[in-house]
Amino acid sequence: MVDLDTVTSGNRLALARLLTEVENQTPAGEQALDRLFVRSGRAHLVGITGAPGTGKSSLVSCLAKNIRAEQKQTVAIVAVDPSSPFTGGAILGDRVRMRELAGDQGVFIRSMASRGELGGLARTTAGVVQVLDAAGFDFILIETVGAGQSEVDIARLAHTTLVVEAPGLGDDIQAIKAGILEIADILVINKADLPGVENTERALRANLDLGYNIRLNHNSAHKVTINDVETATSGWTPPIIKTVATQHSGIGEIVAEILRHREHLLKTGLWQQRDHERLRTEVSHLLQTELVKRWQKSVSPQVFESLLQQVFERKVSPGAAIDTLLNDSYN
Amino acid sequence: MVDLDTVTSGNRLALARLLTEVENQTPAGEQALDRLFVRSGRAHLVGITGAPGTGKSSLVSCLAKNIRAEQKQTVAIVAVDPSSPFTGGAILGDRVRMRELAGDQGVFIRSMASRGELGGLARTTAGVVQVLDAAGFDFILIETVGAGQSEVDIARLAHTTLVVEAPGLGDDIQAIKAGILEIADILVINKADLPGVENTERALRANLDLGYNIRLNHNSAHKVTINDVETATSGWTPPIIKTVATQHSGIGEIVAEILRHREHLLKTGLWQQRDHERLRTEVSHLLQTELVKRWQKSVSPQVFESLLQQVFERKVSPGAAIDTLLNDSYN
Repeated sequence: MVDLDTVTSGNRLALARLLTEVENQTPAGEQALDRLFVRSGRAHLVGITGAPGTGKSSLVSCLAKNIRAEQKQTVAIVAVDPSSPFTGGAILGDRVRMRELAGDQGVFIRSMASRGELGGLARTTAGVVQVLDAAGFDFILIETVGAGQSEVDIARLAHTTLVVEAPGLGDDIQAIKAGILEIADILVINKADLPGVENTERALRANLDLGYNIRLNHNSAHKVTINDVETATSGWTPPIIKTVATQHSGIGEIVAEILRHREHLLKTGLWQQRDHERLRTEVSHLLQTELVKRWQKSVSPQVFESLLQQVFERKVSPGAAIDTLLNDSYN
Repeated sequence: MVDLDTVTSGNRLALARLLTEVENQTPAGEQALDRLFVRSGRAHLVGITGAPGTGKSSLVSCLAKNIRAEQKQTVAIVAVDPSSPFTGGAILGDRVRMRELAGDQGVFIRSMASRGELGGLARTTAGVVQVLDAAGFDFILIETVGAGQSEVDIARLAHTTLVVEAPGLGDDIQAIKAGILEIADILVINKADLPGVENTERALRANLDLGYNIRLNHNSAHKVTINDVETATSGWTPPIIKTVATQHSGIGEIVAEILRHREHLLKTGLWQQRDHERLRTEVSHLLQTELVKRWQKSVSPQVFESLLQQVFERKVSPGAAIDTLLNDSYN
């Protein structure tokens, strides 16, 4: 049994150990998650995503330092690398960061690498974030590499999502990430001292406007103008902020926008709405898993495998096999 | 009720209508899928994925023409665009293609656009492919944009997966797609008349070797040399083929490799193994959906919502809520 009071009273070693249990989904970890849940729900969860090469990691370090110095609040950083393990970027960036932020008890850093299964990573990340939330951190910065569906799932955890771009990464990159832009609450152009920054800003703005149009079209099934955007998205237009993280320039503006976004979420009820949506999804997933687990106990593996065999041989369709299985076990 | 004999006897209009039912997941569509299942399992499913700008669509047209002319076999093309609908590439490429392949009764083309939900697209694609399989097409070419997890899911449908690259798309692209390279059975460098083709080939080969090392390390937990690769991957090393689709150059080589890969799959038993894995996943998904559906009938929505409310208020953990729900409804 993990001593949860030690964890929530600021013992960093106990916290690190508990996070390992949660990551490995041990029974002790699952139990602790369950018991810590009632203490969670207070932290501001901020997702930071972007392609490799945008300087995301330095930016996250700067944000942490600024929040510590200016807001006097505690910060946990969760660095998630959902890409193949051989990129190694998260680990390397992490070492540098640890040195920079070392010695401050108000900052805690955790790296998570992919273990092959994408949906699995999103779920363990949710667990880790929940523990850090219950442990009392004011801000939790969740950093992911922007490369597909997984970080969209991880971003869904967050109250506020930052998408980080940089000049000179090419038009193709922009196109690929169109889907990721749609999840941005705040857009950051880092390395804004590099040539091409105007092009990046123009491309972002174009994508952003287009993205809003499409999102609205999905719902309203007719074309809308940019002027309708503000109303339709509950009054939040993602700001575009230029930074040079290595020179600590523009960082204060991002933090100010994060705080402004929080105000906005609280005022419009979106804070609670995002929280509820996340919990509803979690309950649904758990329910599915439990239902399947309980059902498996009620049916013999032999019956299941022999039906599967008939499906393999194209004698029985998957739908018919399920009907047989469920009617046998519940009638 | 859809007349399935009309569909399987070559009536293209009836086929197109049935596919719409399947895409929209209507009861008639689901029923037809179920009944057609026993006639499926014969086609060679070939996935083709790659970033925008690689000339994927032209390549797929050329492949279809070559298979028709040289192999005298029938071909269905399923073009899937899992990215945001505003890329529009699939639709445009499709128009051009339709003109090129028009008039040949042995070719059938179907475009599918994203409807917002990624997992959902993979599932409807599976249904569409199953209908085309049952309708008797020898080859089904499934074309997707390479941009994340969704096309990895779609590629899992295929017996043989082609990953298409092109010179000059930048190093970042390569890094992002490292995960996609791992699913390649055949690597194609299209637009091989452009400058930089040697760099692309070198980058691919490096990623490929690295990818194999990692994949092997996952299993064996120790470093292996490239020489071990052949044995460990059941004797198939993905060939790298250079093409210029617009000049129909290199197309015959790809088709030859597709046929060689089929031989390999059949000889090693992998053909059947991939088929069984796919069907096992399909049965599991269906089972989950059905269990949840049946359970929902057994519990009152009021009870569910009031428990969810307690979770929202952090009074009850998701795990405890599920326990209460399941014990109430099944005891």
